[in-house]
Amino acid sequence: MSRSIRLAVIPGDGIGQEVVAQGLKVLTAVLPQDVKLETKEYDLGARRWHATGETLPDAELEALKQHDAILLGAIGDPSVPSGVLERGLLLKLRFAFDHFVNLRPSKLFPNTATPLAGRPDIDFVVVREGTEGPYTGNGGSLRTGTPAEVATEVSVNTAYGVERVVRDAYERANARPRKKLTLVHKNNVLVYAGHMWKNIFDKVGQEYPEVTTDYLHVDAATIFFVTQPERFDVIVTDNLFGDILTDLAAAVTGGIGLAASGNINPTGEFPSMFEPVHGSAPDIAGTGKADPTATILSVALLLRHLGYEAEAARIETAVATDLEARDGTARSTDEIGDALAARVAG
Amino acid sequence: MSRSIRLAVIPGDGIGQEVVAQGLKVLTAVLPQDVKLETKEYDLGARRWHATGETLPDAELEALKQHDAILLGAIGDPSVPSGVLERGLLLKLRFAFDHFVNLRPSKLFPNTATPLAGRPDIDFVVVREGTEGPYTGNGGSLRTGTPAEVATEVSVNTAYGVERVVRDAYERANARPRKKLTLVHKNNVLVYAGHMWKNIFDKVGQEYPEVTTDYLHVDAATIFFVTQPERFDVIVTDNLFGDILTDLAAAVTGGIGLAASGNINPTGEFPSMFEPVHGSAPDIAGTGKADPTATILSVALLLRHLGYEAEAARIETAVATDLEARDGTARSTDEIGDALAARVAG
Ligand SMILES: CC(C)[C@H](C(=O)O)[C@@H](O)C(=O)O
Ligand SMILES: CC(C)[C@H](C(=O)O)[C@@H](O)C(=O)O
Repeated sequence: MSRSIRLAVIPGDGIGQEVVAQGLKVLTAVLPQDVKLETKEYDLGARRWHATGETLPDAELEALKQHDAILLGAIGDPSVPSGVLERGLLLKLRFAFDHFVNLRPSKLFPNTATPLAGRPDIDFVVVREGTEGPYTGNGGSLRTGTPAEVATEVSVNTAYGVERVVRDAYERANARPRKKLTLVHKNNVLVYAGHMWKNIFDKVGQEYPEVTTDYLHVDAATIFFVTQPERFDVIVTDNLFGDILTDLAAAVTGGIGLAASGNINPTGEFPSMFEPVHGSAPDIAGTGKADPTATILSVALLLRHLGYEAEAARIETAVATDLEARDGTARSTDEIGDALAARVAG
Repeated sequence: MSRSIRLAVIPGDGIGQEVVAQGLKVLTAVLPQDVKLETKEYDLGARRWHATGETLPDAELEALKQHDAILLGAIGDPSVPSGVLERGLLLKLRFAFDHFVNLRPSKLFPNTATPLAGRPDIDFVVVREGTEGPYTGNGGSLRTGTPAEVATEVSVNTAYGVERVVRDAYERANARPRKKLTLVHKNNVLVYAGHMWKNIFDKVGQEYPEVTTDYLHVDAATIFFVTQPERFDVIVTDNLFGDILTDLAAAVTGGIGLAASGNINPTGEFPSMFEPVHGSAPDIAGTGKADPTATILSVALLLRHLGYEAEAARIETAVATDLEARDGTARSTDEIGDALAARVAG
């Protein structure tokens, strides 16, 4: 049987280019001989926007649909007004391809710096809703720029959208040894959306009697992220709360240089997209200082999503072993990529 | 000259009762002889709601207006559906009394446990908007409880509301030695509200040339709260982001047992309200384990707001000295209150 992966690559801006190159290096090294990797690069991001004013033309959106998966580096540059590329490209992809599961694992690897004293045992995964909530772009501004301006942002939540992501989270919790699922919301203030989330969470939970459940307000959750992160196993939450919590999770597990993510369309109707949680970091772009590990771990999520479980696990083991073997000497983007490629090929 | 403070006291639920008693003890001890303290207790919270179905009747809202300030313990009990007391009492007070500055100082006191390694120097204050944003109660639910449910939450932001809180934050930053103000929002996604906040922040900033300014997305801000909290001086942010960030701030500065807050109406049109950031903690209510320090520090904010700067500072010094003198022996709620009352009377 000959197998193939048709991969779309969007390096994007800043360090995106550099980390994606390492991700591809490791992907190539880990894949079995019989798997044919076809990559196609898409020139999207700040450079393209400056050149043509385009963020994501329809033709490219269509072309992207033909791929099995997308690997994305980072989007964004200070020269572009805030929101243009985020809304016009990154979120457009997440919404157009119905990436309703934004999967963000957090694990404190050995020999990795954490700002937390006592090095708690951290190993949880956040299932962030990816297609609803305050991210829908609903809202507006009236009398913009005047002292009488009113600006609104509308969080839109549907039972359809909440149930499918909650169910996905239960499935993931059920498949893990601890089988624990925590819902994070703010249902004492955001009562309409919050109560709907909670009701659906409780209802779907009846189908998973082995999963222990828990509810936390988002403010309280941030406290436990720093005082007791070991209490978490799987967390399911709304798009905005998930955005906030996963940056905090990255910070307590050794930093944004290690945080991977998958924007997943579990039905397979559209390609899923994998990207590091970090941004384009223009301040260190071109210096070789960017850590490609988050991208390489995102490649592991990509492989797992496409059914290459053994290869995904090999990358994750390689990262753990590599971090453990570190002696504190600073390594360049390229050196880290080389080291991991060597380990997975091994 | 004879002076007086007409204080409304809302002990509320759970440990609220216990911590407020200590707050009043210290308040009485610190006040000069010539200041007449008149307190009136309001029975509001879970007990009242169970007994009468009322959260905050109009007559009591009117009566509360006659006071110089309000001291609140904590509101909420698991026996009351989530949102009923929060929306019907606590937020109703904040909105009715136009508490647009929700002031939350964060300071890591000596000899205090922090989950952060290396004990960074933390001393910042969050100016959280208190009357707008996602807290307005706008939104709704359609086809509630069915698979076709749609639930919305509307964040409402006005130039009027944003400008006044931003100006207050600049004033506070300008009065502090480091003179640094950070705006936290999420203007790359919440573009309508976010851009309005940023524009007003920049415009008002022109009147404060000595204040150094900075902008952070809320997700990035949580990272710095744990990796570099010493970078913050004054933070101004929206109602929901402020809620989340101040719990995280409390966690990194020794816990929610020390976090004070003031819901301030700077115009003096309505009484301001002071309360610990923590909740009613029903699990430890009645055990004498509640730490009253957050409430006592809230009393300091109350005194400062009413012009008793020396007395406010005396409480804060007493707390710092008391924490420093701790030997690790657990003390009851009452013992901590007694110790602080003795120190401020000193
Ligand atoms: C860049 C931004 C739009 C994005 C988000 O808010 O989702 C990022 O912070 C992330 O977490 O992937
Ligand atoms: C109890 C709740 C409504 C409240 C809030 O969200 O403002 C609390 O968390 C706080 O921070 O004072």
